[in-house]
Amino acid sequence: MEGHMQLADNPGLQEELQRLAEEGKLARFLARARHLHPSDLSDVLASLEEDLRLRLVQALPPEVVSEALAEMEEEEHPEEVLAALRPEQAADIVEELDVDDAADLISELPARQAERVLAYVAVRDDIERLLRYDEESAGGLMNPEAVVVRETATAAQAIDEIRRQAEEVEDFYQIYCVDDGDRLVGILPIQRVVVAKPETPVQTIMEPPLATVTPDVDQEEVAQLMARYNIPAIAVVSLDGGLLGRVTFDDVMDVVEAEATEDILKFGGAPGEEQLAGEWHQAVRSRLPWLYLNMITASLAAAVVFLFQDTIDRMWVLAAVMPIIAAMGGNAGTQALAVTVRRIAVGMIPPGKGFRVVGKELLVGAVNGVAVGLLAGLVTAPFGWGWEFGAVVTCAMWGTLVLATTAGALIPLVLQKLGVDPAVASSVFVTALTDVVGFFLLLGLAAAFLLPRI
Amino acid sequence: MEGHMQLADNPGLQEELQRLAEEGKLARFLARARHLHPSDLSDVLASLEEDLRLRLVQALPPEVVSEALAEMEEEEHPEEVLAALRPEQAADIVEELDVDDAADLISELPARQAERVLAYVAVRDDIERLLRYDEESAGGLMNPEAVVVRETATAAQAIDEIRRQAEEVEDFYQIYCVDDGDRLVGILPIQRVVVAKPETPVQTIMEPPLATVTPDVDQEEVAQLMARYNIPAIAVVSLDGGLLGRVTFDDVMDVVEAEATEDILKFGGAPGEEQLAGEWHQAVRSRLPWLYLNMITASLAAAVVFLFQDTIDRMWVLAAVMPIIAAMGGNAGTQALAVTVRRIAVGMIPPGKGFRVVGKELLVGAVNGVAVGLLAGLVTAPFGWGWEFGAVVTCAMWGTLVLATTAGALIPLVLQKLGVDPAVASSVFVTALTDVVGFFLLLGLAAAFLLPRI
Repeated sequence: MEGHMQLADNPGLQEELQRLAEEGKLARFLARARHLHPSDLSDVLASLEEDLRLRLVQALPPEVVSEALAEMEEEEHPEEVLAALRPEQAADIVEELDVDDAADLISELPARQAERVLAYVAVRDDIERLLRYDEESAGGLMNPEAVVVRETATAAQAIDEIRRQAEEVEDFYQIYCVDDGDRLVGILPIQRVVVAKPETPVQTIMEPPLATVTPDVDQEEVAQLMARYNIPAIAVVSLDGGLLGRVTFDDVMDVVEAEATEDILKFGGAPGEEQLAGEWHQAVRSRLPWLYLNMITASLAAAVVFLFQDTIDRMWVLAAVMPIIAAMGGNAGTQALAVTVRRIAVGMIPPGKGFRVVGKELLVGAVNGVAVGLLAGLVTAPFGWGWEFGAVVTCAMWGTLVLATTAGALIPLVLQKLGVDPAVASSVFVTALTDVVGFFLLLGLAAAFLLPRI
Repeated sequence: MEGHMQLADNPGLQEELQRLAEEGKLARFLARARHLHPSDLSDVLASLEEDLRLRLVQALPPEVVSEALAEMEEEEHPEEVLAALRPEQAADIVEELDVDDAADLISELPARQAERVLAYVAVRDDIERLLRYDEESAGGLMNPEAVVVRETATAAQAIDEIRRQAEEVEDFYQIYCVDDGDRLVGILPIQRVVVAKPETPVQTIMEPPLATVTPDVDQEEVAQLMARYNIPAIAVVSLDGGLLGRVTFDDVMDVVEAEATEDILKFGGAPGEEQLAGEWHQAVRSRLPWLYLNMITASLAAAVVFLFQDTIDRMWVLAAVMPIIAAMGGNAGTQALAVTVRRIAVGMIPPGKGFRVVGKELLVGAVNGVAVGLLAGLVTAPFGWGWEFGAVVTCAMWGTLVLATTAGALIPLVLQKLGVDPAVASSVFVTALTDVVGFFLLLGLAAAFLLPRI
């Protein structure tokens, strides 16, 4: 029985390995690390100082270290390890990897260093072919290695083929059946081959491919198809149906997680590409432009206040109501925005049905606006000039909430229509919009109806 | 070659089926719908009027309709279809399902109706056993049906076992090897059985289980383990190692998507359980309590303004700066919050390392606070009383940003420590906090340093 040891089941193992590495006991480190799952070894490597990590990678056999590098998070910069090695050494590691993982690693290297490493790699052509696809497309995710049989084969021949290809193709759950022109015509779940009589033609037990994608399909759509049809792998085919490779569930699970991170960061007004565990100065650089942009939008709200300086000057209590209007408008707006952005992301808004979504949110805003507006009017009236003041607050609050929910639904839908990622309509900008409208309503109504009376 | 037809590949098919259903041409509907993938048939059913849907479900054979119901989104309420059928009919449908899907469907029914249906179900005990687990745990997700062999078996015997069990167990990628006490001792990828010599003992080709979970493990942790180790299925075992079932990648992909939705909704200040495609009145009811709660927190900011009424009365321009301070503090706070909530969600903050995260965000706030504060001071100075006014704005802005980023990181970390879901620290509440502190700094500094001079 061979296999991997799990870091989580061995408390203290990570510390022990770190200690062995720091004390330079490489032989003992190696003996222990050999049995770690690549994901766990990658954690150990990531926890070490840079020069120590490099020394270990040089000392460890390429087949042990290669997958650990492939499993490293992007922000741990596995390519820097590769870049620090001699090109021949780096090439040994790259060759141990599945070609899609190899391409991912190489793509992070600067062009000249990638060139230097690739010069020593035997499967260079395969890697370069993959590098041509967009990283976030089916082509960028796919592994071109697959177990393939002709549709004219028998179950026994398919098993021979599995035996022959199993050495190279690691995890597979399906066999692809192709015609004379290498066009995909059927999918054969591996358990069907096992239970079939040897002489059964695969044509009679294969299934038509439930879903296939061309290499240019966006990774989010690939993930949605696989989740919809519960398939562990999806075939990537050319426009004329030629089998190019397959994307497996594990690539796609990473995609779903990465997209969720990107969406939440954008929603929170942080750039979606910020690396979660990046250095402070990277965070400063990536967030500052958004803050400056928001300063411009916030100045619009300030300008509204400026416009009504006379009103505030004579009724300072309005300044105390402003934050409440702003907070409630912001909250109602981000509620509608979050629901709408998410409905778009999971593909729940059929084309042409967007107006229904906006209509629903308008209604929600109108009803909640009455509920919140009346309470706000009641609470603030005693601090102002009686019921007229309360009425102004109620109306301003109602209008703000109606606008907030409508804008929260409308903006991402319009962006999607324009082909822009709806998630850039972050809460920050909806909030700025509701500030402007809320202040305008509150101060404008006060100027029109209250000022003449005092 | 048997298999499914895909809705997306047949433009007009959905409309045609809808038309056939509405015209009552059930035989023709059935002939067409038989070849649809359950996910696609579920879309067609969901698009129909309630009474028509019910009529179709009654007319279609249970084996066709059962999986379509199981694939329906929770908010399309498949259980209502079940509830409208006679209990014997509902039981026929339930029995066609994998027992985990059956349990999911039954769990949505009111207790008395569930009882009425279960009375007719042969696998009642199996379903009731699953119903005891928390819906969002490994036990709630698992399918108890798995292909199992004794570790003493040979490859040939394993293949016989696959043949025997393949009728009942649908999608499987691994065979579980157990000892005399039914305890899980190894995992056998199906392709290894295929390529092994028939007389090979499975003990020599199985792998130790890379990761297993007990039934109480939270679904998010299950998803993280499967993504980490790239495994299509994870075994669920009892405390003494007995094999209870398995969770497959397709269940987990749904989990990752649902958790992302929940996190974004909470982050946006909407309750995480709001159904994305729910009715407007459900949205009103679920969001209103959050709006009222936010009104209380917003009142704190209003109270600060109230406290400094004299200051604003004498320097109305402060009222124009307030929205800028609030907007920038809110933006910086939600940036830090989004990054931290996400780091926690993907398991990127090792225990005891939380202070580093807070330290990083404090630093980011301090640096961006200087950059934003200086600009804000420069821009506002001409509108106030010269450079002293600018200096007050700069200091208030700087303090607000430092607090905002620190709170954005600290609050979710503290919540996690307390065992509360960090995502409830929504942007709305961080924004309320930054409003209070920002206004206090701005108005307080102005009262202390500017008022005496005018």
